Order: sequence, then structure tokens, then C-alpha cells
Amino acid sequence: MALKKKPVTGMKDIMPKEMEIRDYLISLIKETYKSYGFISMETPCVEHIENLTSKQGGDNEKLIFKILKRGEKLKLDVAKEESDLVDGGLRYDLTLPLARYYANHMNELPSPFKATQIGSVWRADRPQKGRFRQFTQCDIDILGEGSILSEIELILATTTMLGKIGFSNFTVNINDRNILKAMAVYSGFKDEDFDDVCIILDKLDKIGEEKVAEELCDLGYSTKESDTYLSLFKEVTRDITGIRFLKTKLAGFLDEKTADNLEMIIDSVERAKEAEFSVAFDPTMVRGQSYYTGTIFEIAIEGFGGSVAGGGRYDKMIGKFTGQDTPACGFSIGFERIVMILLESGYEIPTKKEKVAYLLEKGLSDQEIITVLNRGKADREAGKQVLIVYMKKNKRFQKEQLAEEGYEKIIDCYKEN
Amino acid sequence: MALKKKPVTGMKDIMPKEMEIRDYLISLIKETYKSYGFISMETPCVEHIENLTSKQGGDNEKLIFKILKRGEKLKLDVAKEESDLVDGGLRYDLTLPLARYYANHMNELPSPFKATQIGSVWRADRPQKGRFRQFTQCDIDILGEGSILSEIELILATTTMLGKIGFSNFTVNINDRNILKAMAVYSGFKDEDFDDVCIILDKLDKIGEEKVAEELCDLGYSTKESDTYLSLFKEVTRDITGIRFLKTKLAGFLDEKTADNLEMIIDSVERAKEAEFSVAFDPTMVRGQSYYTGTIFEIAIEGFGGSVAGGGRYDKMIGKFTGQDTPACGFSIGFERIVMILLESGYEIPTKKEKVAYLLEKGLSDQEIITVLNRGKADREAGKQVLIVYMKKNKRFQKEQLAEEGYEKIIDCYKEN
Repeated sequence: MALKKKPVTGMKDIMPKEMEIRDYLISLIKETYKSYGFISMETPCVEHIENLTSKQGGDNEKLIFKILKRGEKLKLDVAKEESDLVDGGLRYDLTLPLARYYANHMNELPSPFKATQIGSVWRADRPQKGRFRQFTQCDIDILGEGSILSEIELILATTTMLGKIGFSNFTVNINDRNILKAMAVYSGFKDEDFDDVCIILDKLDKIGEEKVAEELCDLGYSTKESDTYLSLFKEVTRDITGIRFLKTKLAGFLDEKTADNLEMIIDSVERAKEAEFSVAFDPTMVRGQSYYTGTIFEIAIEGFGGSVAGGGRYDKMIGKFTGQDTPACGFSIGFERIVMILLESGYEIPTKKEKVAYLLEKGLSDQEIITVLNRGKADREAGKQVLIVYMKKNKRFQKEQLAEEGYEKIIDCYKEN
Repeated sequence: MALKKKPVTGMKDIMPKEMEIRDYLISLIKETYKSYGFISMETPCVEHIENLTSKQGGDNEKLIFKILKRGEKLKLDVAKEESDLVDGGLRYDLTLPLARYYANHMNELPSPFKATQIGSVWRADRPQKGRFRQFTQCDIDILGEGSILSEIELILATTTMLGKIGFSNFTVNINDRNILKAMAVYSGFKDEDFDDVCIILDKLDKIGEEKVAEELCDLGYSTKESDTYLSLFKEVTRDITGIRFLKTKLAGFLDEKTADNLEMIIDSVERAKEAEFSVAFDPTMVRGQSYYTGTIFEIAIEGFGGSVAGGGRYDKMIGKFTGQDTPACGFSIGFERIVMILLESGYEIPTKKEKVAYLLEKGLSDQEIITVLNRGKADREAGKQVLIVYMKKNKRFQKEQLAEEGYEKIIDCYKEN
């Protein structure tokens, strides 16, 4: 019986043209982050199922590819439920494995630990256009540093990288979960409803103010709370002035330090940035992950819906492994999104070498072949990329195809006699 | 409850020092193979369980990490055996997925298709020192080219890459399964015993001639066959002369073209090589994988047991997917072995940048911090790698550690007042 040709449902084979962009992007990312003092690291793709289902991953935990126990450990006859059958799963993000890694190797790592990770993650999402069940994530994190130096450096490194691939005029939006909280409490929402209030607020862009107000009332509040809440957002400008406004307005609800920190992050990023972009305060930004404890940030590019990067502070996750909280802050770029944007815009990688193709006539002597091999060697030494292939019957078509693949120099090699 | 800190059994966290070598090696490999006209490609880590258990992978098929069906497809209550529970598995090599990829995308790919793949593979082997259940493979393959141009280019590209990381005086050993077969048949072994004869011959290095002779007799042959067989190996020199000797000796058993091809491969590699190494004919080399159909080759380095690369021709695999045989030949380097050799020999990657660290005194003003950020920016623009961290109480120890991490310039930044 013939084997299956298609990749498994929801995952994709990566074609050479896309691969060239991915390879280039990865090398650029690694180089840029390294220049900011970030260190490369890697964890296995398989994680303990206990860690993956420990409620650090929110909804992603419903989407885990689970791995069957092996050998004697698999007791199919007595297994009652799924959890009896599995002992591992494919990681759904790089943050949880990073926390485990740090907990495991803390004493061998620099402090603070500035980490770069690029790797595949898996989520058994419903297949849909442009979203795949295996995709690459690309994170930088600073562990063990509680000050906003982390936020500043994460934003500078990420934006520098985006600048290097030609992105400009994008916006870094920044907020703090403590501001979100203070605004909610100031407006009369209870602490225990904070998560629900955030979920509703997060839909502001999509469903509009009226619907948000409705849903807030559905939580059991009067229009007073939702009115106060929503009018706050209207009063706040999306800049340092807005932060200062809230610092005064939310006095007693918001730690002044939170506002000062946000202001300093925006100011210093603006004044030390290496790419062209702006930084804005966005009091409506929520970000899904429940593990964030402080600042949160995203990058939006004009003309592309959604964000191309996102991150924030999560000071409570490492403590789940070590029993002791460790400050942590990370920024993750939407690798697959960026690849798609570059691919669709016809991006040409800037490091292309001259490409030379030698076409060998069938029946060349051994000596003639060796001569071509040595010409190829000389070309490579001169920095060129060399392809040596046999001439096809339809040589014209072959040359057209090679030209399409970027071979600008094509040399026919005929036999002498 | 605290989460698990250790990686899953048999898999490893990769530490920064090793990671630096891996990153460098991967970029060097990609660059070198690209200069030989190989194209980067990737398949998902998860494959159809049907493909993984189709007898293309030999013993590796016993070591598959299997993935549980999800949602409604998982019917635990009616599942009778393991295969009812799973629909995918983690790939155990890169060759089978490559064959699937080629079968799936043949019409969109150049012909011949010269592919580079670097990726993780998984085998649930018994954990042992230095061997892990997730490891990186790094393959080049040429699909759709039946001539020995494939073998020559695969060997040249691989050895060039090894030369670039400083390996020299290694040996490329080469053989052909058709020579193995002709020698066996010439000696009186039957066709149907060929695989068993090979398995025994493969142990020659380990168990010696006497034991091999014994085991051959155990197959039901007299000492005549084993004597003829083993004395053949003694007569053959490990060079082109040996190949010519066999061409005459095995006349009627061996296609002359096979001997001529081997001779041409050795000759042209010797005369077009870009690194320092030798090429030898090794008539005792078997290589495990049953899918090989012609030439087989390995690279051995003096002082390191086992091989650091291996490959060969497998003209029958793609036909399992397409119904039509396609010539194919590949060479895989032992990525993990090479990393270990480099790591243990204290290899220093040659592309290191100057590393500068700024130590910030606690309490620096916002303006002072921004000034340091801008000094870092200027350093990066000058090609340096910059770390900005807060000064610790034990500054001397901190500086020692930074020096160990390679920061040769460490700048104290004190507050002005």
C-alpha cells in the first residue's frame, strides 16, 4: 500500500522559498539578540505532562499533543482515562519550559539570565488558514531582574531586530496589569471580578463600547460602574500625559511607582531606540495569559491586524517550580506572522550570493567532470553559490527554471569529442 | 505542589556554552551546503503513524514516541490495542519525511532536488551516557539524480563543512552494497542469506575473523564458503587497486560499472576536495539501514570510535510513496557527536565579537540610565556585544563571573551625586 504523502492534519511542509526567509530571519534574530547580551538556550520539545497541565498555560492546555507511555508503563487493559495513558506532551509555548529550565539550572546560569529561545511549539487548534498546529516561537526573557531595565532592553532588542528586516513606523503599545486593576477597582468593580472585567475589556476593539457596557452590567453591576470605567478610557491620552493623568486620577488605587515606571520605559525606549517606531501607552490592552503580573506590551504594524510581538512581566511562574518567586519578563515575536508578511511582500534577503550553474552534457569524460568540479571549487572560494547538474533534453526550459531559482550565470559544459 | 524541574527522561536541556557551539555549527552547515547548491527545507516533527511504521526505519520503528488521538477520535472505551489510540508519532529520522515531502511536492521542486535538513528526531532508546532521546540530525540529499555526481557532491560538501570546523586527517570510507552482494554470492552464499551475511560481517571489527567464520557456518554453510569469503577481504587493498582487483576477481558476479563508479568517486573526490582528508575503499563496511541500494559511505576520525557521518544511495524509498522509483542519495552528519567533540576539545567559535559589560550602580537617575543605553547602542553599532546589568553587592565576584563569560571590558557606571 502506498504511504501517505500529505503532512499530518494542520501541520505543513516548508517549501524552499519560505525556508530561505526563515533561515535568514533566524540568523538575524540570533545575531541581534546576542548583541544585546542574550544567550541562546534550548529545552526538549517534550515536557512532563504534569507541567503542561499545571494551569500555567490557560486555554493552551486544552490543545496539548499528548505522548503515549511506552513499554511496560503503558497498561492499556487497566487504563481508565486519558491521563493513565500518557506521561508527556509537546510543549505549547517556550515560557513554561524556560521556567523549568531556569529552576533546574539556576546555579549554573548568569544572574540575571538573559535568554533567547527559538523553537517549535504545538497546539492542536482547529485547523484554519494561515494557522498551523506546529509553529515556531521566538522569545527573549530576562530572569532574575526585577527592575524596568528588563522591559527597556526587551523592547529595544525586539524593535532593533524588526528594524533590521525593514519594518518601520510600527507601534509598541504598553500597559501594566496594575493599571488595569486600579482602573477597575476605581470604577467600582470588585477584585474577584477583575479577570472577567479584563476579558470583556479585551473585546472593546471588536464589539464596541455599548456591548462592553452591556457585558459589564451582566456581571451584576449597574451602569454607574461601567460608565465610570469606560469614560476613564476616553479621558486618557495614549501617551506619557495619559499615564500622568491616571497617576493623579487613580491616587489611592494605583502605586505611583507603576506610573513612573511606565513613563520611564516609554521615555528611555524613545531616546535609545535603534529603529523607527513609536511607543504608546494603551490602557485598554489586556493580553490573554493569566500569568502576567505587571507590565504588558505588544507591537502593532500599520496595515496588519493583530500584533507581531507580545510580552510582559510574569514574576510568579518560576516560583511554581522553585517555591521562591523570581522576577521574570519576556518578549515573544510572532515568527510565523513575520515570515508570512515578508513572504507576501516579496522580501528579498539581503545576503544573497552570486549563483552559478554548470550544465554538464551527458557523456563528459571523468577528467572533464573533475575539471568542472574544480571550477566550482574556485567559484565557491570566490564566495559564489555553485550548482552542478546534468543538461536536460529541454535545455531551454531547464535554463528558464534555473534563472527563476536565481542562477544568473549558467555555463554549458560540452564534451570535447 | 511544585512542578517537575528536570527534563523528561532521556532528553536534555541545552546549556548556553553548548548552545553557542550548536548555533555556530548550524550556521556554518547551512552556509556551506548552500554554497554547493543545496536548498533548505523542513517537515513537521509529527508524522503519520502509518508512515513511521511502514518498515522503512528498521529497528527505529520500535522506538517511536507515539501521539494520542485527540477529541472524539480517541475512543478509549473501545480501544483494544495501542494502534487504536494513536494517529501520529515523532519522526525517528529525516529521511522518511524527506521522501514523503518529495513525493508530495515533486512538481514544485527543482530537479534534481538538492535538500538540506537540520532538525530534531526522537527515539525512545534506553537512556545511556551521551545518547539522548531527542537529538539533532543534519542531512543533505540529492533526489532525482541517478549518476555518481550525487555521491561526489555529497562527499565534497560534507567534507568541506568538516574542514571548516577544523577537522582534518579524517577518512571517508566508501563501499557499495552490490560489491558486498557480489562477494557473498562469489563465495557461495545464497541471495536470500545476504542480509544475514551482512549482519555478521558488520561485526568483524568487534568480534574478529574467527567468530565471524563461526557465525557464517551457523547459517548452514561449510567452512569453504566462509574461508573463501574471509580470504577475499584479506586480498583486497583499501584503495582503487582493491576495487580493480575485485572488478576482475568478481567478473560475472559484479557489474563492472559498479567498480568503475566507485573508482571515479574516489578519484574525483581526491582531486576536487576542499579539506584535508583521504578516501578509502572499505569492502567490510555494511551500514545498518536496509533501505540502501548502492553506494554507502562513512567518515571516521582518527581517535574517535565510530563514525561522524554516514550515508548512501536509496533508490527505492520514494517509490513507496509515489509508486515510481526515484534515484536518491544522502549524507547525514553525526551532529551531536561533532558538538560533543568540539565541546570537549574546548573549541572556540571563530566569529566571537568583543563583549562589553556596563555595571549600573543602584540609584542611577533616569537620565544616567538613558546615557548608558546610548553608549550600548553605539557599541553595538561598532560591532560589539553589550550587556547592561545592575552592580551587585559583591562586585568583585560579579566581575570574575563576567570575565568567565567572556566580557573583557567591564565598565562601572556610578551615579553623579
